[in-house]
Amino acid sequence: MRRTNIPDAAIRRLPVYLRVVSELAEADVPIISSAEMAERTGLSPEQIRKDLAYFGAFGTRGVGYDTALLARRIARILGLHRGVKAALVGAGHLGHALARYSISQHKDIQITAIFDTDPEKIGTDVMGVPIQPVSELVETCRAKGVKIGIVAVPASAAQTTAELLKEGGVEAILNFAPAKLKVEDVFVQNIDLTIELQSLAYYTSASEGDPGDGQ
Amino acid sequence: MRRTNIPDAAIRRLPVYLRVVSELAEADVPIISSAEMAERTGLSPEQIRKDLAYFGAFGTRGVGYDTALLARRIARILGLHRGVKAALVGAGHLGHALARYSISQHKDIQITAIFDTDPEKIGTDVMGVPIQPVSELVETCRAKGVKIGIVAVPASAAQTTAELLKEGGVEAILNFAPAKLKVEDVFVQNIDLTIELQSLAYYTSASEGDPGDGQ
Repeated sequence: MRRTNIPDAAIRRLPVYLRVVSELAEADVPIISSAEMAERTGLSPEQIRKDLAYFGAFGTRGVGYDTALLARRIARILGLHRGVKAALVGAGHLGHALARYSISQHKDIQITAIFDTDPEKIGTDVMGVPIQPVSELVETCRAKGVKIGIVAVPASAAQTTAELLKEGGVEAILNFAPAKLKVEDVFVQNIDLTIELQSLAYYTSASEGDPGDGQ
Repeated sequence: MRRTNIPDAAIRRLPVYLRVVSELAEADVPIISSAEMAERTGLSPEQIRKDLAYFGAFGTRGVGYDTALLARRIARILGLHRGVKAALVGAGHLGHALARYSISQHKDIQITAIFDTDPEKIGTDVMGVPIQPVSELVETCRAKGVKIGIVAVPASAAQTTAELLKEGGVEAILNFAPAKLKVEDVFVQNIDLTIELQSLAYYTSASEGDPGDGQ
């Protein structure tokens, strides 16, 4: 059965499958069963079969999935097979680390431009990628065909940054700024470290828990 | 109505509410309506009323919520009112930035210890917090009463790190390593930058989309 849409939740699991099958393919393990995939991902075999079926990867009953084939197929679905260009805005501590991390980790997502407003940072580089003034963002992103924007600026500058990225042709944003972005026709994924850390506190004995649970 | 449990999804929204009402309280804005809260958070007024009702904050009909009171109440629910101690393991680029970011941003989540295996890093500090050898992790975390662990080590070291943190008394882990952690009785939240970036690619024109959608 062919689908015209894959749920966001399934899309977010595809890179997990991609990691598992890529590692196996590189290790010359040709086949993985959905049971093995479940063990390695912590997801249920049913969930895995359902997710992969969305894009027509059914595997072979009683045998499993061809790891190399599945890796190629997932990469194509995500658009990683030809590499996706990304730009980082905000080369502060977090942005700088994100850039180094991304540049060193991701061959398929390439950080090809970095922007900041700090004159002391402009002209320097992160692992060979020069830090440019934000005034060059739109033109540079258009010229390089940047599709993904990583926003690591202060909350007060986040919305403006997102609008510049859209103007530069960016279609998806990973937002680390603690601010709600409003940009039409741009997919925004937020990662808010404050929220992650504060939420975690609830699960520790520091929390008083719910008013009604007797803690 | 009192509850003995608040859903994880609602817990993850509490810090968002906390941020909004704290900012307003600091700006001497005493009251916020759920409609205003919805505008500032992007959540529906119904969702907000439901979330806040979980812990008995109903606001005043036709008036709204007392910003200072709600901030204090959410902080207590999360255990932030007395500060929660956190430890970071892995002072690489990402870990170092996470430490600087957290130390500078969070008064309520205090990074009180940092651990690494690199002899060149051990003995140095991040904004006054010394980097100690991992061999001191368990003892230090116990002595300081660390409840939250931030894991920013390579995937190959993540599981061992998580087990050490549990032995040190950590009850919740924020895991940045691209590895699935198995630690009983410890709440684990994963942030996987590779997965976030690769998922984003699907929403760009680099993606070929679904096999069936004619792209």
